[in-house]
Amino acid sequence: MEQQTEISQLGEFGLIDRLTKDMPKVNASTVKSVGDDAAIVEYPDSEVLVTTDMLLEGVHFDLTYMPLKHLGYKAAVVNFSDIYAMNGTPRQITVGLGVSARFTVEHLEALYSGIRLACEIYGVDLVGGDTTASRSGLVISITCIGDARKGEVVCRDGAKDTDLICVSGDLGAAYMGLQLLEREKTASAGQKDFVPKFEGKEYLVERQLKPEARKDIVAELAKEGILPTSMIDISDGLSSELLHICRASHTGCRIYEDRIPIDYQTAVMAEELGMNLVTAAMNGGEDYELLFTVPLHCHEKVDKMPGIKVIGHITKEDLGCAMITRDGNEIALKAQGFNHLA
Amino acid sequence: MEQQTEISQLGEFGLIDRLTKDMPKVNASTVKSVGDDAAIVEYPDSEVLVTTDMLLEGVHFDLTYMPLKHLGYKAAVVNFSDIYAMNGTPRQITVGLGVSARFTVEHLEALYSGIRLACEIYGVDLVGGDTTASRSGLVISITCIGDARKGEVVCRDGAKDTDLICVSGDLGAAYMGLQLLEREKTASAGQKDFVPKFEGKEYLVERQLKPEARKDIVAELAKEGILPTSMIDISDGLSSELLHICRASHTGCRIYEDRIPIDYQTAVMAEELGMNLVTAAMNGGEDYELLFTVPLHCHEKVDKMPGIKVIGHITKEDLGCAMITRDGNEIALKAQGFNHLA
Repeated sequence: MEQQTEISQLGEFGLIDRLTKDMPKVNASTVKSVGDDAAIVEYPDSEVLVTTDMLLEGVHFDLTYMPLKHLGYKAAVVNFSDIYAMNGTPRQITVGLGVSARFTVEHLEALYSGIRLACEIYGVDLVGGDTTASRSGLVISITCIGDARKGEVVCRDGAKDTDLICVSGDLGAAYMGLQLLEREKTASAGQKDFVPKFEGKEYLVERQLKPEARKDIVAELAKEGILPTSMIDISDGLSSELLHICRASHTGCRIYEDRIPIDYQTAVMAEELGMNLVTAAMNGGEDYELLFTVPLHCHEKVDKMPGIKVIGHITKEDLGCAMITRDGNEIALKAQGFNHLA
Repeated sequence: MEQQTEISQLGEFGLIDRLTKDMPKVNASTVKSVGDDAAIVEYPDSEVLVTTDMLLEGVHFDLTYMPLKHLGYKAAVVNFSDIYAMNGTPRQITVGLGVSARFTVEHLEALYSGIRLACEIYGVDLVGGDTTASRSGLVISITCIGDARKGEVVCRDGAKDTDLICVSGDLGAAYMGLQLLEREKTASAGQKDFVPKFEGKEYLVERQLKPEARKDIVAELAKEGILPTSMIDISDGLSSELLHICRASHTGCRIYEDRIPIDYQTAVMAEELGMNLVTAAMNGGEDYELLFTVPLHCHEKVDKMPGIKVIGHITKEDLGCAMITRDGNEIALKAQGFNHLA
């Protein structure tokens, strides 16, 4: 085992110095970073977007199978995802950490290395935070600031009757990855030198442990000159997110079961576990794909965009929200999603 | 006991709706508040300030004697304090909450009523957040966004040789309040109908349970045309904060024991507990007073400002940081402060 340093040896300020030293600054909007009562940023010509996500040990992550570096990466990326979902660009994050006594400086360095990597890849500056003791477990709260050109922010409430409903990537894989990791954790209990069986299912594990935010899709839409009428990221499951859009926009919707994008590995895993594949895709959380609506006249354009699937259309509000199954039945959508408070 | 509603009855989104309904919006910079992936704010002409603070049950607060409404108030105010310490004005907050199963909807409403009250009094908009389950206890992470006029942000690193060191209000009372609350908690153990003894010590209890941020001092300085050369809020104790300023500014300092402002109740309490009064004032945390430096030529002006005390002066770096005691000795300053990670 590597050398482990007690956090108390460094104290709060020594720890922050060590974790944030040589932190690069890539955005012009970042004026002053870590090291004062507050960070300073400047946004003279943009809409500024602000979002916060909190992750708690034992609720949102399990360190038995979630390496700290991956956790840091994921904690940052899920915040970036919220900014992309507004058609914005993430620029700065602040990181709040609550750390119990079992964590060492090296543990936090691993966590921060993941946060740094995410910042590097997505071009975001870490500008501040708060690190404190926790009575039990690890708590991570990240706030992300981003910007969008004036008039180009995309909210949830702009979907219109006849708009097309589009989704990026594929759904349900992160949820199946979680099931797989939980299964292997159970199988490993009490066994020394246990080797988990992930062969042929690497994609599922990666989707759960190292999700990406769809920066590429936002860029692609801009390149094609498409401004979605509404957009949201899929963190709680397609069903729940689609209901958010329809409720905020005062519309209904119809989506088609046979159009929901599902990866082969997701299907195999659902089969293995005897789970309903469509339920997993509709209600499994943490895909961090983008769900958005575009006007009907964009049909040809979105159809040609790689990694985008048109899964249905928006309707008038009184028609409600439903999925058309393969055999032609209508099933009302329900937000069964990923509700930690349920 | 009042009616208690399980959080699971509302779910995450129902809960957020209930807690944030009718939330007023007072700042022009708040464009879109709670209810999307991110909030939208606009700052065309200002420096934007961002700060985060995390409070954890059992580390930063004890619900035995901290009512939830006060806790909400304090959690918001300590963030505002960081923005004032940059010579800014707090405008928006996002609230991240981790909540264990023992908390009901009514508990969270009490917490939010405190946050709302603080927002009302300080003119801040609550624009977003994240509410989730916690495995143990309550976690509150608040991020505050504020603004300052261009060129008027005050950082820690601008203190210059011969500058005067000023402090607002009085010090050590919040720490003594904590000692008092802990004493009464111990005394009450196992006793029914215990009545804590706070008579004549109300100020100490209030300083601990309901601190205020020094909005008034920032306004007063502006009115007098004084732009401090450096500023910080005293959350970890005078000693620690003064060392932050001197380290960031590459200076030393001399402060005078007999000039440190201490309230009568603080002195009485220290006597009662047999604690060193100056140690409490120098190292006790959570006063949320402002510590700042001004050029020597402002002497007359700051001397006349009510609630401001000149406690010493900045020196060249090689003279180090020290306090001159009543009997004329020099004691080197140490950051013994309020370190939860020590």
